[in-house]
Amino acid sequence: MTIKDIARLCGVSVSTVSRVINDRPDVSPAVRAAVLETVRSCNYIPNNSARVLVRSNSDAVGLVVRGVSNPFYSDIIKVIGREIDAAGYTMVMQQINSSADEIGTGAIMEREKKLRGIVFLGGRSDYTAEELRPITVPFVCCSYDNSFGVLPRDRLSSVSIDDGQTAYRAVSELCALGHRRIAALVAGTDDRSISELRYHGYLRALKDHGIEPEEALVACAGSFSMEDAYRATRLLASGGAEFTAMFIIADAMAIAAIKALEDTGREVPRDCSVIAVDGLALSQYTRPTLTTMCQPSERMGEESVRILLDMIEGRAGNRSLVLEPLLRSGGSVAPPRRARD
Amino acid sequence: MTIKDIARLCGVSVSTVSRVINDRPDVSPAVRAAVLETVRSCNYIPNNSARVLVRSNSDAVGLVVRGVSNPFYSDIIKVIGREIDAAGYTMVMQQINSSADEIGTGAIMEREKKLRGIVFLGGRSDYTAEELRPITVPFVCCSYDNSFGVLPRDRLSSVSIDDGQTAYRAVSELCALGHRRIAALVAGTDDRSISELRYHGYLRALKDHGIEPEEALVACAGSFSMEDAYRATRLLASGGAEFTAMFIIADAMAIAAIKALEDTGREVPRDCSVIAVDGLALSQYTRPTLTTMCQPSERMGEESVRILLDMIEGRAGNRSLVLEPLLRSGGSVAPPRRARD
Repeated sequence: MTIKDIARLCGVSVSTVSRVINDRPDVSPAVRAAVLETVRSCNYIPNNSARVLVRSNSDAVGLVVRGVSNPFYSDIIKVIGREIDAAGYTMVMQQINSSADEIGTGAIMEREKKLRGIVFLGGRSDYTAEELRPITVPFVCCSYDNSFGVLPRDRLSSVSIDDGQTAYRAVSELCALGHRRIAALVAGTDDRSISELRYHGYLRALKDHGIEPEEALVACAGSFSMEDAYRATRLLASGGAEFTAMFIIADAMAIAAIKALEDTGREVPRDCSVIAVDGLALSQYTRPTLTTMCQPSERMGEESVRILLDMIEGRAGNRSLVLEPLLRSGGSVAPPRRARD
Repeated sequence: MTIKDIARLCGVSVSTVSRVINDRPDVSPAVRAAVLETVRSCNYIPNNSARVLVRSNSDAVGLVVRGVSNPFYSDIIKVIGREIDAAGYTMVMQQINSSADEIGTGAIMEREKKLRGIVFLGGRSDYTAEELRPITVPFVCCSYDNSFGVLPRDRLSSVSIDDGQTAYRAVSELCALGHRRIAALVAGTDDRSISELRYHGYLRALKDHGIEPEEALVACAGSFSMEDAYRATRLLASGGAEFTAMFIIADAMAIAAIKALEDTGREVPRDCSVIAVDGLALSQYTRPTLTTMCQPSERMGEESVRILLDMIEGRAGNRSLVLEPLLRSGGSVAPPRRARD
C-alpha cells in the first residue's frame, strides 16, 4: 500500500493525499474525510524510504496539539517541551485545528517520525478501542480524559481536571451570590469534548440550586475561537434574553464575550457577571480581570510527560490523574443588581 | 571531548552540564555562562551514541523560540510548523527565555538533532561572524534582523519588519493627533534587540516632530513579560510624570500597561492614549481594543520557511526580506484632552 494506491482508491491526486496527511488547509472537508477514512481502513503507513529511520534509534516524542488558537495550550506546550528535552528525547510537534482528527494525525506521525510516544494536547473524550488501534506506542491525553468512552481504565492515560465538577463549582459561585438567570457560552453541547462536559456541569449546578435550565440561555459558539465566542454572545445578548450572569467554558472565549456584552450595552460585572475556566496569565490584565477556575497547567504538562516516560521506559503502565483547579477571583463577578439595590 | 571533559574543565558535575545544554532553569546564570563558554570554545559536540543518526537521513528542521511567553510567536509557530511539515520535514522546537543564548542553543540542537536547518524566532540583532561559526547549517532569523551587526549581507537570512520605522510610524500617529508628551514602554534601551530598535524609532519620531525626548518618560520593563510591563508602567504613572500618550513596543505589554494606567487613575484613551506594535488577534477583544502596528505574522512564517528550504535544497543563498506592517485602529488612541477641550 503506497500513497499512490490511496490516491487511486479515493480518486484524487497524490498531492491531495499528501496535503491531507500533512493537515494542509487547502483540501475540502469531504475529500479530507474520504482520504483519512481510506488511510485508516487500509491501515496505510506513510513512509519515505529516503528518510526512514530505525525505530530503536529514534528519540522522538510526538506532541499533537488540537486547537491551534487556544492560548491555554501555549504554557503547557512550553512545559511539555522542556520536560521531554530534559529527559533526553526530542519533541516533534504538530498542531491541528479543533475539529481535526488527532488520533489519525498521531497514527501517521507515529510511523513517519518513528515516535516513541505521544502526548495529545486536547482531543475528543469518546475514543473507542477500535479507533485507538492505529496508535501502537504509549500515549497520554493531556487536559482531557475519556469521560464519554467505554475503554478499560488500563487502556488510556490522561492528566486533566474534572471538567464537569469544575464547571459545577464555577456556576455554584454565581448561584451563591444570588444569580438565578445564568447563561452559558459553550463550543458545543454534544461535541464529546470538554465543552460538553463543562456544559453538563453547568446544568447539574443549576438543577442542584433549584434553577430550571433554559435553552434560550445557552449560546453555542461552534468552536473555541474568540471570533465565534464574540459572535455567539452578541447574538444571545441582542436577542432579548434576560440573564444576570454567564458561565463561559474558556478564558479566551470569556474575554471575547465580555467585549460582546459591553458592545451590546451590558457592563461587566454591573449588568452581567462572567466566570470562566482555564486561568490564563493574561486574564489577570484584562478589564475587568477575569474570575476563573485555574487549571494547574504547569503540573498538567509535567505529569503528562512523567506518565508517558514511565510507559516508554517500561516503569509503569497506563494511569489517569485528575488534578484540582483553583478559583482565582477577579473583577468580573458581582451579585446581581436586584440583590445589590 | 565528552560531556565529562566539559564538566571537569568547568569544575561542575556532568548533570549540571546536561542541565545547561538542555536549557533547564535550575542553574545559576554564572555557571550557565561558564559552561556555554566552554562548550563554545572547545567546539564540543553533544552526542549520544545510542541515538546518533546519520546526517543525510535526517529530515529535522529546528525552531528555536526565544521568549517563551510572547503570544505574538504562537501564530508564527503554527505557520512555521505547517510549512515545514508540508515540505516533508520534521519540526523540532526548543523554547528558551528571552535572555538565553539562541545561537548556543541552535548549535547544540544542530548536532544533537542532526538538523538540516534552523529558524530562529526572536533573537539578538548584533551577531558577529565569530558567534555564528558553530552554526554550520542554513538558518533564518524570523521577526528580527541583524541591524546592530556588521555581517556581510550574504552571511545571514532574515524576515522582519523595519522595527525602527514601524515605531516611527506609530509615534508619528500620536504626534499627528497633537500629543507632545509621549512616554515609551520598552524592554530595554540597549539590549540589542527589537526593543532597542523600536526605542530608537520612538526617539527619531519625537525629534522629527520637534519634541525633545525626556528620560523620565521612558519606562524600561527589563523583559517583554506582562508582569514586568505592568510593574514598570505603574512605577512611571505613579511617579508623577506627565504624559498624554504612550508608545509601547509590544501588544501584550500594552495590555498590561493599560491595566496599570487605569489602576493608577488614568483612563485609556481619555487620559492617556496607547499605541503598540504586533497586532495580536486578542488585541481586538480587549477594552479598549488596541491601536497597533500589525506585523504580517502569517507571511513572516511562510517566507522564513521558504527562504530556509531554498537554502537547504540548494536553490538559493542567504537573503533578507523586510515586510510592511499595517496600522490597525482600535479604541486606545484619541487626541490629548487639551486638544479636545
